Amino acid sequence: MIPPLDSGAEIITIGDELLIVQVINTNQAFLAERLNAAGIDVARMTTVGDAMDPILRSFDEAWHRCRHVVVTGGLGPTHDDITKKAVTRFFETELVKDDGVRRHIEELLRRRNMPWTEAAEEQTLVPASARLLPNPLGTASGLLFEEDDRTFIVLPGVPYEMKAMVDQSVVPLLSRRPGKEAILHRTLRTAGISESALSQLIGNVEEFLDGARLAFLPAPTGVRLRISARESTPEEAERKVAAIEGRIRARAHQHIFGTGEEELEEALGKILASKRLTIAVAESCTGGLVAHRITNVSGSSAYFDRGVVTYSDRSKSELLGVPPELIAKHGAVSREVAAAMAAGVRKVSGSGIGLSTTGIAGPTGGTAEKPVGLVWIGYADQGAEFALQFRFGETRLLVKERAAQAALELVRRRVLGIE
Amino acid sequence: MIPPLDSGAEIITIGDELLIVQVINTNQAFLAERLNAAGIDVARMTTVGDAMDPILRSFDEAWHRCRHVVVTGGLGPTHDDITKKAVTRFFETELVKDDGVRRHIEELLRRRNMPWTEAAEEQTLVPASARLLPNPLGTASGLLFEEDDRTFIVLPGVPYEMKAMVDQSVVPLLSRRPGKEAILHRTLRTAGISESALSQLIGNVEEFLDGARLAFLPAPTGVRLRISARESTPEEAERKVAAIEGRIRARAHQHIFGTGEEELEEALGKILASKRLTIAVAESCTGGLVAHRITNVSGSSAYFDRGVVTYSDRSKSELLGVPPELIAKHGAVSREVAAAMAAGVRKVSGSGIGLSTTGIAGPTGGTAEKPVGLVWIGYADQGAEFALQFRFGETRLLVKERAAQAALELVRRRVLGIE
Repeated sequence: MIPPLDSGAEIITIGDELLIVQVINTNQAFLAERLNAAGIDVARMTTVGDAMDPILRSFDEAWHRCRHVVVTGGLGPTHDDITKKAVTRFFETELVKDDGVRRHIEELLRRRNMPWTEAAEEQTLVPASARLLPNPLGTASGLLFEEDDRTFIVLPGVPYEMKAMVDQSVVPLLSRRPGKEAILHRTLRTAGISESALSQLIGNVEEFLDGARLAFLPAPTGVRLRISARESTPEEAERKVAAIEGRIRARAHQHIFGTGEEELEEALGKILASKRLTIAVAESCTGGLVAHRITNVSGSSAYFDRGVVTYSDRSKSELLGVPPELIAKHGAVSREVAAAMAAGVRKVSGSGIGLSTTGIAGPTGGTAEKPVGLVWIGYADQGAEFALQFRFGETRLLVKERAAQAALELVRRRVLGIE
Repeated sequence: MIPPLDSGAEIITIGDELLIVQVINTNQAFLAERLNAAGIDVARMTTVGDAMDPILRSFDEAWHRCRHVVVTGGLGPTHDDITKKAVTRFFETELVKDDGVRRHIEELLRRRNMPWTEAAEEQTLVPASARLLPNPLGTASGLLFEEDDRTFIVLPGVPYEMKAMVDQSVVPLLSRRPGKEAILHRTLRTAGISESALSQLIGNVEEFLDGARLAFLPAPTGVRLRISARESTPEEAERKVAAIEGRIRARAHQHIFGTGEEELEEALGKILASKRLTIAVAESCTGGLVAHRITNVSGSSAYFDRGVVTYSDRSKSELLGVPPELIAKHGAVSREVAAAMAAGVRKVSGSGIGLSTTGIAGPTGGTAEKPVGLVWIGYADQGAEFALQFRFGETRLLVKERAAQAALELVRRRVLGIE
């Protein structure tokens, strides 16, 4: 029984840490997503450990059955990184020193104030028959081997290095290759609505999908809707995706804050900047996460001047002017204190909008009346001052993440006049 | 080149939804974790789509190289579930109706108030040569094929059904098998040192590994060192790992902040709590991330009273008392302002330690003199007030993450009297 050759791509991720699940294999999912988006079918995904024989065997099998092989992991400079040796042996070539790579590493180390080491020297060695794919964020070059219209690509396993290289080199490289159908994916980002509520709102998708696909991808901070169409030309795929997006937006536009990889803080930042609004935050249970999210956006200083993390009762009074009596009467986790925090940070900062969080992040500190997960989000602007109650579940970090997302979404809706 | 047979297990997950990343493959990680914990080495993990030929080929390859094969996915009753047909063909057997399975499904449907369907009828068919593994939560039975001391197990892909079956049937089954070795992994977490510098510090690992393994796992916020030993008894594995850990600590103890999944903020929290120290933070470029990290630890309110995110120059003066002249003279990103921020937040909060960050997170705002990635971290306590310069590279989020980690690590070292 010898089945025929698969078309498409095989993804090989290498690392003992993946087999013992010390690290979740996010590289594999990322690569599969990007290859799919580029119109390359992923036929198989394989994970092997840091040992020569299994690595060589996985290379051999993949290269015999798939048109494209993308390998990640084990390209670093230490003794357990053997992928470079393996691929050099597999393609029967040899390691040679590369001056361009040397200059790149020298520059990188200089920028990081780090000395030249034996490990750096090791990284200047590359297989003679490989084309090199630049690694702007690290020292390990990507390696490209080609035979006719087939490619064998080796990337480092450090996720942020690998991801940058996939977007800069690998996707453009593979997208140029002929014989593909046009596959188009578009993701709509939602916040503040559950998967089932969103599904009900959108209705029976079979009525309008017309051969395309719609996936609901829930995450703690919101549901992504991914539309996928496979057509014979890019124009037809675009037309189909646009029609489906239109149908979904007609029913759920107020819940959609952006598309693709756009985060809520980016969408909100654009809105605040365009309306020339400013915002200040006062955080208790989110502990700085809301400010962190806001300042993840380049240019956020145009609308964000300051935030305070008022963890203790005393700091709420000293920094925000919340009366100690109010805290004594209602408790720090209350509608009254959340609203006073928002109004207080608005006032002391001179910002147009004040936003606050106060809640029980857990795992301890909950009571029957105020359980773990209870969060009040406060909002204040020129014309309003109020707080809304939320219940977020499970772990401390999830409570913080969901509360931060809900706080940002509350501002987005308020500023846009939604609901 | 035909490498020898792998020992251990291969995990095969089946489903188109995994290859297009509509669903993240949590089943694979779960299975790997449970098999490792049961002392079964996972040698390889494979994912294929819902098509007969690739499934058969993956079975064939896995069964030829691994002692145990565990398959999940594609056992359901719908048209795209073909795993049962594939495994029946692979083991050259036939599908037969099973009365026990029928009674189980009847009972399950009765409890759920659901009618008998064609799909239910289909689920009563099982391969004649398979032993059945009960599925208490669903209709698809697990399948077990045995040859000598080798096993081939097929499980449904519905996560909660599969997980229950693994814990109830698969782990006990595989744990009973003889010839298992004791495998022990231990991870040491480091911060503030690069992979290559750490490697140089530890020296030639072959001198002391004595058959065990040491992996360097770099991430933007630090390098993990993972020690793995495989011995005939748990005691011997523990002895070997402890000896290697001792050797590494003898050379690099000051860089190791914890073990396992412990984060730097947890390690620091324990130190601060045990020394009855308190800390306050003033963040510019990290934008709240340092406070977020500190407050990720349950109980952090014992040593953390407040933080401020002073993004604008004005807020640095108003909230921290940094003289506007100082900012005008040296710039907000400077040794002087970083130190004044740390001293200021210490003073206004009444905390024992003040910690600050100010830098160019980018991607814009850099100059030749103060490039993107330049960060000053300020520190103040009763006896000291200073700032250190760092260079963190590349993207805005990476600069923030590295700066936050470096800030926490600076406090850890200072409080422990390291360097």
